[in-house]
Amino acid sequence: MKKINIGLLGCGTVGAGVAKILIESGELICSRVGAALNLKHVADVDMETDRGIPFDDGVFITDAQKVLDDPDIDIVIEMIGGEGIAKDFILKAIDNGKQVVTANKALLASQGDTLCKAAAEKGVDLAYEASVGGCMPIVKSLKESLVGNRITSMIGILNGTCNYILSKITDEGKPFEAALSEAQANGFAEADPALDVEGTDTAHKLAILNALAYGMEINLKDIYVEGISRVTPSDIAFAKEFGYRIKLLAIGKHRGDSVEARVHPTMVPFGNLLSNVNSNLNAVMISGDAVGDMLLYGYGAGMMPTASAVISDTVDIARNLLTGATGRTPLLSYQPRAIRKIPVMPVDEISTHYYFRFSAADRPGVLSKISGILGKYKISIKSVHQKGRKSEGPVPIVMLTHHAKESNVKKALSELAGLDIVEGRPVLIRIEDNDQ
Amino acid sequence: MKKINIGLLGCGTVGAGVAKILIESGELICSRVGAALNLKHVADVDMETDRGIPFDDGVFITDAQKVLDDPDIDIVIEMIGGEGIAKDFILKAIDNGKQVVTANKALLASQGDTLCKAAAEKGVDLAYEASVGGCMPIVKSLKESLVGNRITSMIGILNGTCNYILSKITDEGKPFEAALSEAQANGFAEADPALDVEGTDTAHKLAILNALAYGMEINLKDIYVEGISRVTPSDIAFAKEFGYRIKLLAIGKHRGDSVEARVHPTMVPFGNLLSNVNSNLNAVMISGDAVGDMLLYGYGAGMMPTASAVISDTVDIARNLLTGATGRTPLLSYQPRAIRKIPVMPVDEISTHYYFRFSAADRPGVLSKISGILGKYKISIKSVHQKGRKSEGPVPIVMLTHHAKESNVKKALSELAGLDIVEGRPVLIRIEDNDQ
Repeated sequence: MKKINIGLLGCGTVGAGVAKILIESGELICSRVGAALNLKHVADVDMETDRGIPFDDGVFITDAQKVLDDPDIDIVIEMIGGEGIAKDFILKAIDNGKQVVTANKALLASQGDTLCKAAAEKGVDLAYEASVGGCMPIVKSLKESLVGNRITSMIGILNGTCNYILSKITDEGKPFEAALSEAQANGFAEADPALDVEGTDTAHKLAILNALAYGMEINLKDIYVEGISRVTPSDIAFAKEFGYRIKLLAIGKHRGDSVEARVHPTMVPFGNLLSNVNSNLNAVMISGDAVGDMLLYGYGAGMMPTASAVISDTVDIARNLLTGATGRTPLLSYQPRAIRKIPVMPVDEISTHYYFRFSAADRPGVLSKISGILGKYKISIKSVHQKGRKSEGPVPIVMLTHHAKESNVKKALSELAGLDIVEGRPVLIRIEDNDQ
Repeated sequence: MKKINIGLLGCGTVGAGVAKILIESGELICSRVGAALNLKHVADVDMETDRGIPFDDGVFITDAQKVLDDPDIDIVIEMIGGEGIAKDFILKAIDNGKQVVTANKALLASQGDTLCKAAAEKGVDLAYEASVGGCMPIVKSLKESLVGNRITSMIGILNGTCNYILSKITDEGKPFEAALSEAQANGFAEADPALDVEGTDTAHKLAILNALAYGMEINLKDIYVEGISRVTPSDIAFAKEFGYRIKLLAIGKHRGDSVEARVHPTMVPFGNLLSNVNSNLNAVMISGDAVGDMLLYGYGAGMMPTASAVISDTVDIARNLLTGATGRTPLLSYQPRAIRKIPVMPVDEISTHYYFRFSAADRPGVLSKISGILGKYKISIKSVHQKGRKSEGPVPIVMLTHHAKESNVKKALSELAGLDIVEGRPVLIRIEDNDQ
């Protein structure tokens, strides 16, 4: 029986899941690969935590360097995360001729091109299915299953914590903070919750998907990012009333010479499958010229679902090693020479449907004034709802628009904010309707 | 630039889609594979139909044998379908050392083991992503992405025609025949509609999925199959009233030493994503010990979505050829020596929730009599609904049960059918509830 030796760096939540599968499902994996995946070393500085995994003597060590330098180790799995030491370890592993598996979306989104270049030059594989969408085979689908498609659009719910929080507020009326604490207690929130709720984690994932789908250099910095921390319960309630659920979406659309790349709270109509993706689940709707619409759905984070994707990568690489086919699939979906610098469209240039909410004085002529300004900026109103009446003080006015250009919307809202009949800052939420 | 030569057998709907992608997206595919996929020959007896594809001179021929015998052709794509000549062509291609791609689910479900054995002996690849679920990467997910999972259950909507018909009846009140004609006009129905509506096509697909998921020999004959032709508009309406939609489901569940394998109309609760998969779309919910629940969704039939999957297989094989890695992944997901004969559980032994509809006399004591008989067979009633009252004649009584054993249900219904207060044959529809 052939044997592939594996070194695991980092034995936190997901790392422990990977070790668990390699040990407890070793026979199953062997019956499919035709070789044993042997977990030779697990390196983690934390020797205290009981991970409930029966490691053989000598397997668990604290020195990552020993894994990187071990000539017997074929595949290094980096489960440390972050952009610090993890990068050095990956580069060292590549330099030592080892194959690498990682789930490090932050590192890939910022320096994936560099890592992939280093791996390609050294002739080793670098796999990262678990970096986006946990267990969902989104990376494999873009690199392999949809290889004959011109991808036109990807719309995804890619952060379980945000989706959990929004679902809890929508369905149970839970306060934001309570929902976030629950997500943390359940172990699927990032160590730093700002990465989740401010949309950064989602943007990391979108940057990776855009590169894979459109053959563009990884571009994180130009993605428009707006988190969920400013979404109010009243907007969630209004959305529901009009037949929408608010989701934090990653949107990557091909627009000829540029790509729309944005992450923001978005209203999704009930009829759309994405609006039915709740709790901490993730999903991505991918559209291509041949497939039409295709959706993947599953747990995007957490110990075992993420570990499942890491194992998938590890087996892929093992199969390449066993057949001498390392480098069989290009690391970023396209052959390196075909990867281009495709600009991200500035968010001001996008055109979509909008939801606005104003606090406005409840008196005759107000609506005419507001709609006059919207009209001036070519924003056509689909429906207007004035919610509640008061004897005095402002009332909320809610509007849904037809397609409008973001730059016009911003100008109009800024002009409206200056009116004495409008109190505070108008609220804007983009709508992803099925006709887009 | 390296070149892989392809021979396409059959240029009907899907075959033409494959040719279209190979020709029109040749450059895209090349930018990903790093080699040209050259469609050297397309063989079809029908030279008359204009497929709107600009074949170069000499590409389109009528003699399939010429493709099979051409030493330059590396990959043969069989798009003829059916269990007749297609099998001979595939075996001949294998015998001539060619790699094979097919979408022929009927052939795979009945003789997949034989074909895979022949391919493995000859050392060639045989790929069939398009045989199940059209564009959805279900075969690849089971063979590769979920390789570290013990699959526990697969529940799928795998026939677009049935789903289209049921959706049209449910949402638009269309008659069965009209909905079927529409499906045929839209080009996604099988040539023989009985294959669709009687559940045979779905069973073919389930037989393939069970083999891939559970490492069992392909077993079509023991799958319990019930089509949609006996589903009445009134059952669809009652289902809706109780919060369910009726779907033709393929259910493959791992039950220790056996596998549940059944295809039948099933009530699915609104909250379940599968109940939101409508029109001619397909979806499969796969559950595994690591991933939890994962769903794939997309077009399960039709020209371009199916062709997209065929291209995915073709590229996979091309990548194997380019790296000398043919045979990299076992043809049936498990290493041949690990494939076992796992029995299919007789349908009488399954246990699930049920919907019953009786036509019963509307008079005191009837319900007590019916529930008495159900109680005798350990069938616990969850709710009873008597629909409408009449001065005379029978009225429909509808019941939902808790978990019950199918053999008991059959005995009880047979005893009930013999009562003079029950008219005609009681109707039984299984329910797939979220707690199963």
